[in-house]
Amino acid sequence: MGSLGPYQRKHKVSVVGSGNWGTAIAKIVAENAAENSDVFDKQVEMWVFEEKVEIGKDSPHYDASVSGPQNLTDVINRVHENIKYLPGVSLPTNLHANPSIEDAVKDATILVFNLPHQFILKTCQQIQGKILPYARGISCIKGVDVSEEGVSLFSERIGKTLGIYCGALSGANIANEVAREKWSETSIAYDPPHMDSKAATPQRSPTSSQVDLVQFQHRDTSGEISKVKLQALPSDYPPINHDILKTLFHRPYFHVRVVNDVAGVSISGALKNVVAIAAGWVEGMGWGDNAKAAVMRVGLMEMVRFGDKFFGATIDQRTFTEESAGVADLITSCSGGRNHRCAKLSVERNQPIEEIEQSELNGQKLQGTLTAVEVNSFLKKQGLEEDFPLFTAVYRILKGQMKVAEIPSYIER
Amino acid sequence: MGSLGPYQRKHKVSVVGSGNWGTAIAKIVAENAAENSDVFDKQVEMWVFEEKVEIGKDSPHYDASVSGPQNLTDVINRVHENIKYLPGVSLPTNLHANPSIEDAVKDATILVFNLPHQFILKTCQQIQGKILPYARGISCIKGVDVSEEGVSLFSERIGKTLGIYCGALSGANIANEVAREKWSETSIAYDPPHMDSKAATPQRSPTSSQVDLVQFQHRDTSGEISKVKLQALPSDYPPINHDILKTLFHRPYFHVRVVNDVAGVSISGALKNVVAIAAGWVEGMGWGDNAKAAVMRVGLMEMVRFGDKFFGATIDQRTFTEESAGVADLITSCSGGRNHRCAKLSVERNQPIEEIEQSELNGQKLQGTLTAVEVNSFLKKQGLEEDFPLFTAVYRILKGQMKVAEIPSYIER
Repeated sequence: MGSLGPYQRKHKVSVVGSGNWGTAIAKIVAENAAENSDVFDKQVEMWVFEEKVEIGKDSPHYDASVSGPQNLTDVINRVHENIKYLPGVSLPTNLHANPSIEDAVKDATILVFNLPHQFILKTCQQIQGKILPYARGISCIKGVDVSEEGVSLFSERIGKTLGIYCGALSGANIANEVAREKWSETSIAYDPPHMDSKAATPQRSPTSSQVDLVQFQHRDTSGEISKVKLQALPSDYPPINHDILKTLFHRPYFHVRVVNDVAGVSISGALKNVVAIAAGWVEGMGWGDNAKAAVMRVGLMEMVRFGDKFFGATIDQRTFTEESAGVADLITSCSGGRNHRCAKLSVERNQPIEEIEQSELNGQKLQGTLTAVEVNSFLKKQGLEEDFPLFTAVYRILKGQMKVAEIPSYIER
Repeated sequence: MGSLGPYQRKHKVSVVGSGNWGTAIAKIVAENAAENSDVFDKQVEMWVFEEKVEIGKDSPHYDASVSGPQNLTDVINRVHENIKYLPGVSLPTNLHANPSIEDAVKDATILVFNLPHQFILKTCQQIQGKILPYARGISCIKGVDVSEEGVSLFSERIGKTLGIYCGALSGANIANEVAREKWSETSIAYDPPHMDSKAATPQRSPTSSQVDLVQFQHRDTSGEISKVKLQALPSDYPPINHDILKTLFHRPYFHVRVVNDVAGVSISGALKNVVAIAAGWVEGMGWGDNAKAAVMRVGLMEMVRFGDKFFGATIDQRTFTEESAGVADLITSCSGGRNHRCAKLSVERNQPIEEIEQSELNGQKLQGTLTAVEVNSFLKKQGLEEDFPLFTAVYRILKGQMKVAEIPSYIER
């Protein structure tokens, strides 16, 4: 990407998280960092929560000179494979597994967050004040937190905690397929306050060129206004913009479209699970492909309406109807996802979905049922249940207050 | 629907066509005419191309007093079932099968066209000048005619031939499922020049209240401008508008949304078949649900672009991304439709799609392959192949100039 121009410094990329999806994304950004060494530091750091692993004698990675349990990071750096969370996939040699989160992030200008959502806040607190103040983030964590009070995006929570701007990546992606380079698409949303370029904004301090600060306001759906002070990227780095993010994430097998709508990309990833539950029920009823497509269409429209109602001007409804994070992820989730599958089985076996969850998911919880309950508590408080008949129907069916057979008449209008 | 107000005259509805889909739609409008007798004449006519049928002794409809072959219309009117084209489905008793097309349409203010597209022109010519000059039409014929010269909508062809305005109905509907009252949705598009109301338009003749004429121009994609003189509906009829069309077509099991975008509703029904071929190939390759969703998303965007490019201001891109005729019909066609199925088999068996067509479809032709060729001839003439990489890839793969495995790199941008 010579078109990005000659800058004195290169971007250092760190991936925070090394699970299934974290490692798959780390593989991608390391491949691109290696191929675009004019813009990126070749070595990409991946923070790995250290643990001990055993390598059996029948493994191709068995090394007779090493006995007993080994550190996962050492194994990754020696065999270039995350044998625990992404076995069977070769990783680029320029991807470095780092057991120290502080060391992994300290020089990074681009931080990629990809870990289970329950660990985000704690992890961010751990590195507060220990990152470059002008770093930028991309959150690959799916979904949002919905409560009675409002909707909170993981990207925003990361940004607020660290005092940086953080965008989001979400799409119709299954980690194992992406890691095996099966073709898919994704959406990246990135729309920081205007400050990276030389074009001064009114809030930009004209006197300090190295430490430009922009104070921007964010109002979340609960009405809370937070002020975040954002530090400009020094001008000897290539600007972090849509082009550079595409350079970092796009692969021949992983097509990236970069948009501005962080809220849309994030809430799609949560709400589609609620629609997938409904689609699974309808399929379980044996009503045919048209009925399933109808419930998906109605769900898509409620996703649009939800975004429009609670994020207003900042949302672009085309995120839902045209991007991978929207319509494509919805289609995937309503074809083979676990929410869809468990809902379908619950109708076919005439069992509550909780029982299916227990028997099919090994104690894991469905995201769709949790989100349906959270979304309903929020809608109820706003007096808006009737404006979202499908979301409301899903909630009521989960609570035993309605039957799946009533969906068509309930959403009829 | 008392809200439509008290008018002296009622609408007479006729359905032209009595195949599988024609009879299913006739059932619906007859049910609604019976339930809304303040607005509609209760008896709905259905033109049936007369033929002789035999009723075997084991049929529940066997009548010992009638021997030998009988007229299909007589059987339908006696047993209230189209035993030939929609067996097993009871029809409303107020639906009258009529073997004379001229008699069936002569009093109709609302004409519903639902017959195979190769018979449309001839059928319309047969009733030219023999219908009420202020009648309005709805075409349920899927798809469009694409040639090097442009795109022609069946609704427009009907309208031009008969000198009336004709809208369109299309959606994620399978005749047998709709007939059996399995829930689905559909889209009706209806947007005549403004003339039915008392509010005079500039072109409206102020002197004649019974025979108001509006001359409106239609420019199709080939640039041809046709002038159609449209006669206003006499004011003693309820106006034919979105509300009345919803009253006529909406059922608890058949949810209708009425929009203005006739071109969008019509071309969706054709272009989705091209996308379904691509989705079938991708599924056949075993690339997973995400790849399939990706190719569907890209296809949807090319459908939007096609509409935008060739129908410009008259098209509403939300028809593609939000309505049953658009995204929902696309989803259905990419799940279980014959285009998708044959394409999938052609990859799995490594056979040309024509061979699959022959072995699977009993000599019938796939709509998707025909449309892909037609669309390509049009795009090629306009020098626009590169702007529609998926449509172009489908054409080239069909012609053996490209391989399915090349789709991701070909559409990468």
